[in-house]
Amino acid sequence: MIYMDNAATTRMSRTAAEVMQPYFTEAYGNPSAIYQTGRRSKEAIRKSRAVISRMLGAKQDEIFFTSGGTESDNWALTAALEAGIEKGKHMITSRIEHPAVLRTCEYLARTRGAEITYLEPDHSGMIHPEAAAAAIRSDTVLLSVMTANNEVGTIQPVAELGRLAHENGILFHTDAVQAFGHIPLDVNEMEIDLLSASGHKFSGPKGCGFLFIRKGTGLGALMRGGAQEFNRRAGTENVPGIVGMGAAAEEADAAMGQRAQYETELRDYMIRRMMEELPGTRLNGHPEHRLPNNINLQFPGLSAETALIRLDLQGICASAGSACASGSLDPSHVLLAMGCSAKAARQSVRFTISHETTQEEADCVVEAMKQIAGIQN
Amino acid sequence: MIYMDNAATTRMSRTAAEVMQPYFTEAYGNPSAIYQTGRRSKEAIRKSRAVISRMLGAKQDEIFFTSGGTESDNWALTAALEAGIEKGKHMITSRIEHPAVLRTCEYLARTRGAEITYLEPDHSGMIHPEAAAAAIRSDTVLLSVMTANNEVGTIQPVAELGRLAHENGILFHTDAVQAFGHIPLDVNEMEIDLLSASGHKFSGPKGCGFLFIRKGTGLGALMRGGAQEFNRRAGTENVPGIVGMGAAAEEADAAMGQRAQYETELRDYMIRRMMEELPGTRLNGHPEHRLPNNINLQFPGLSAETALIRLDLQGICASAGSACASGSLDPSHVLLAMGCSAKAARQSVRFTISHETTQEEADCVVEAMKQIAGIQN
Repeated sequence: MIYMDNAATTRMSRTAAEVMQPYFTEAYGNPSAIYQTGRRSKEAIRKSRAVISRMLGAKQDEIFFTSGGTESDNWALTAALEAGIEKGKHMITSRIEHPAVLRTCEYLARTRGAEITYLEPDHSGMIHPEAAAAAIRSDTVLLSVMTANNEVGTIQPVAELGRLAHENGILFHTDAVQAFGHIPLDVNEMEIDLLSASGHKFSGPKGCGFLFIRKGTGLGALMRGGAQEFNRRAGTENVPGIVGMGAAAEEADAAMGQRAQYETELRDYMIRRMMEELPGTRLNGHPEHRLPNNINLQFPGLSAETALIRLDLQGICASAGSACASGSLDPSHVLLAMGCSAKAARQSVRFTISHETTQEEADCVVEAMKQIAGIQN
Repeated sequence: MIYMDNAATTRMSRTAAEVMQPYFTEAYGNPSAIYQTGRRSKEAIRKSRAVISRMLGAKQDEIFFTSGGTESDNWALTAALEAGIEKGKHMITSRIEHPAVLRTCEYLARTRGAEITYLEPDHSGMIHPEAAAAAIRSDTVLLSVMTANNEVGTIQPVAELGRLAHENGILFHTDAVQAFGHIPLDVNEMEIDLLSASGHKFSGPKGCGFLFIRKGTGLGALMRGGAQEFNRRAGTENVPGIVGMGAAAEEADAAMGQRAQYETELRDYMIRRMMEELPGTRLNGHPEHRLPNNINLQFPGLSAETALIRLDLQGICASAGSACASGSLDPSHVLLAMGCSAKAARQSVRFTISHETTQEEADCVVEAMKQIAGIQN
């Protein structure tokens, strides 16, 4: 198998999977309990929180563990609207956000009176701070723009957007699900108030993520019940998941520069070969401000759907658009927003590599695509 | 270590922990993906759904995987209020529900205009259908009463409550977090519309639970985003967690009668010894309509807090009230609602055994309590 869908999910790090093990059948105490095995669980959670908060330049009690990126996004948007209710109900986001943001915005508009402005990206998938500035109103409570797009990999000008939000007294949320553990992030330098991340996108476990909430933002909870997570996220903590995510974060942090350099080179190699050897191939997304692992290409005359089925027959895992939208017949909302035609969107395939991807695998995928596109080597 | 806090969390079944393993580092595909490793994840989820739906007499597409009991409770209550909005905003629950229900009710009352009637239990912790009947109004949309109480173990007359709700055109939700996998449940016989459960309460993993939603109830989502879980619960599925929970459910189902008989005998043995050998000891909760694993006793003259610390020094894990309320100085809201004084509540200790608890361990705990209470053997 050649796995090139790391934006959908990643293979867990063996180390991360191993450190989870004792917490299933040995150190299984409830972290809320006062006895020894409970305290051990609590301490394990604290360690993960310390790792993650350090990576972001955040305080430990600004990290709240959740069930994943979707919960973090739902929480951030819903609670920001509730916290800002006296100021207004206007929120600004972009057309190319993940469905976890877009569907939540639609829900808040439908049921809670929120008014949403959707910023348009340019042809490279970039959201410009000037467009955000023009959308700000006196009743705006939140600006939410993803750190990097999950489909085309474009990295947004997060620091500029954060500064703009703060100059206007607005909370700034960023969905960093594709970025955390892959590119450096600092919530202070980037003036981020709320940041969503998901363990399984950086070689951690599925079912575990976190939301960074800056102190003093006055945000409430999404889920209510017990006093876990500083009384902000109820429910018995997913101790093994949190431990595994912490270990994966620590590894990602230590290797980040090295992994990013390796992936960037392999990414650009694949893009170059595809564009040179498959004439007419076009790159979707920004050529430079781009996640190290993202290759999203438009192959004129090719049906992405057919290509993916043929790649699968050869043991190659890739995707069109995001995993969350798969099964849908609609063309990618991200590519459409970037100005692609529906036809061009349906000819686009996403390959997302990892630090474990080899050049042999990259070559193999290029050859497979050439064969599928009907061009003999 | 002697672990007698199985209501707080359980040790994972070794089988359940083992079947999760391939899904971390081998079969890690996103279940939404079309390629082979994605389809394998999807099939693994389907199998767990089949096991759980069969245990409840439910259809497969009536089971929705969540991050745990708290999410399931939050979802059920919030979505039931939204679904019933044209009929009204009145909800009936009980004083002895888990905080996941009580705090959500308070939130819905504070922010969404819900009106809540709280039913009072009798001295044994039983909620009487007559009390529920008297509380029904023309604008009542939901009755939510837990299957069995997490602190005192009292099993509620769920089938009668379900029938009553349906005779009055009201949805019936039950928090079965302590009951599922421990006592037989049938959503049709018991006329249940919504049922919450949590994996780590029946030897499955933490961070994974489910909500049963009867078809035709018109309930929406709690978390929005991708189309996972029949478009009702967004977010990449916690594949290993769902697999582990399914395996634990299957084991619990196969062994349920045998485990319940063993636990009931050991429970009654411990209760009898404590009451005979520690004069003045009283049983909290119902003597018969009681979870097989629950022993909740009031020890006059004893501080539960001090007792728990001393038990911990001897390697014995027990609790006062629920884990979710630990760290709180308030006496148990359940015992107070049942008519206990605050003093009596602070003298109460909960021991929750499992099918793995031995008689030697039970004897050891009785002796420890006698020593702590100052009575020599």
